Amino acid sequence: MTFARAALVGTGYLGGSLVGALERAGAVGRVAGYDLSHAIAERARARGLVDEIAGSAAEAAAGADLVVLAVPVAAVGAAARAVAGALDAHALVIDLASVKAPVVAAVEAALPDGARYVGCHPIAGREHHGPDAADPELFQGRPCVLTPSARTRPDALAAAEALWRAAGAHVLEMAPERHDRLAARASHLPHVAAFALACALDDGEDTAALAGGSLRDGTRVAASPPPVWRDILLANAAELLPLLATFKDEIARIERAIADGDGAALAAAIARANRSRAQLVPG
Amino acid sequence: MTFARAALVGTGYLGGSLVGALERAGAVGRVAGYDLSHAIAERARARGLVDEIAGSAAEAAAGADLVVLAVPVAAVGAAARAVAGALDAHALVIDLASVKAPVVAAVEAALPDGARYVGCHPIAGREHHGPDAADPELFQGRPCVLTPSARTRPDALAAAEALWRAAGAHVLEMAPERHDRLAARASHLPHVAAFALACALDDGEDTAALAGGSLRDGTRVAASPPPVWRDILLANAAELLPLLATFKDEIARIERAIADGDGAALAAAIARANRSRAQLVPG
Repeated sequence: MTFARAALVGTGYLGGSLVGALERAGAVGRVAGYDLSHAIAERARARGLVDEIAGSAAEAAAGADLVVLAVPVAAVGAAARAVAGALDAHALVIDLASVKAPVVAAVEAALPDGARYVGCHPIAGREHHGPDAADPELFQGRPCVLTPSARTRPDALAAAEALWRAAGAHVLEMAPERHDRLAARASHLPHVAAFALACALDDGEDTAALAGGSLRDGTRVAASPPPVWRDILLANAAELLPLLATFKDEIARIERAIADGDGAALAAAIARANRSRAQLVPG
Repeated sequence: MTFARAALVGTGYLGGSLVGALERAGAVGRVAGYDLSHAIAERARARGLVDEIAGSAAEAAAGADLVVLAVPVAAVGAAARAVAGALDAHALVIDLASVKAPVVAAVEAALPDGARYVGCHPIAGREHHGPDAADPELFQGRPCVLTPSARTRPDALAAAEALWRAAGAHVLEMAPERHDRLAARASHLPHVAAFALACALDDGEDTAALAGGSLRDGTRVAASPPPVWRDILLANAAELLPLLATFKDEIARIERAIADGDGAALAAAIARANRSRAQLVPG
């Protein structure tokens, strides 16, 4: 048993999946859960993801060896402030947010000096949400990025690595700023593309009969929850905005080739997409 | 045996999959293949998709009960002209192109009056190409759109329907123009989105480590072959160009919300994407 007592602040899909994975691995004992929505906390208890429901984030964190801040990007700083006074000195604190630089800065500002905190981002999110969708197998074979800063304690980093390995993930490390630069490319821009594609096709035509793989795959993450993605996109605006300009330029280049009947330019753009895709998603 | 002798003009992925499916169903006897590339015709013969290689499209079509024009969109008219003089009066002629109005017009202009021709578009394409990727199961449970025109003979339409059912597809019918309007939404715009997304991420950053489902799915069809998609996009320019303008507008709307920190507008756009996605890809 690595963590005799754990606290899960935010008992939704991702946090529920993590405590479920750790329970299955025998890495946690008793889990106290807290959620702003009592109904969601109750669902997590009904599913056996948490053993008890705490009355506040601080109450959940008191006496815990592990504190998981599994709340939306914009709420992680406030969650850290809520637990800061109740933390045991040895407790490992992690968050799971998809944007790291502002989140790591907010948590480090909230926690006492010497706190054992490590920013984490498991690359395993799906368009699901809520504890009923939680899946203890979610992290199996998936990457989890740990984003140590200058303040991160080496012993805390080692403990977080062991935790994610127990959950089935393979662990990467990079600075928070580097993570955000890559996440904008690997996740945030593809989400905006899917949102915009779904919105562009919201024109009353009944295309379902002709829907093939390109429409299904291209809009899959357009089903992602608005509050979660609102916060992610706003938090990573600095990295995302230049990419959106480039994305529009690439669409305009293809549009111009089509409008001009310029087959050579069009084939060249598609060939470049072929090469880029092979690099982006090898094998 | 529905068709004792069949001709496959263009022995690539889609045509190879169709004759493979018909052979498996016992619906065709001997298949003569022709391809501009002798190497590709040889691969189709080596895989047993065609029984013999003809020296020309006309030679393949002579004496055939079924003529499948399985060439790229821009080449269907020329293929129809090539076989027109050699066709038996009772032969069923089909094409498989992804754009129908210009293709149906070109084939009807090429074939003799009273020819038994039906435009077809099986919604089962993948990013594969070549006879080695051909899959006789490709059409199982997938839609195939038949696009009869004012000139289409009812007996030819019935025969084409039976052919696609034998291949495992379920058959839809609509006018060629209606097909192209819906295909621009259900396939052509999603392909441009994937091409542009892959091109926008062709910036030398190594995002592979962080690549999740959104990047993988959002760029999957960016691996599609340039000549095929150059022709499709050019042939359906009239339907596609207004959609591309709308797509850029939707990206700009999201971009503006992010730049302004306007969480309400951003959440509203994502919620609209949620609703549209549920309609586009039900269930």
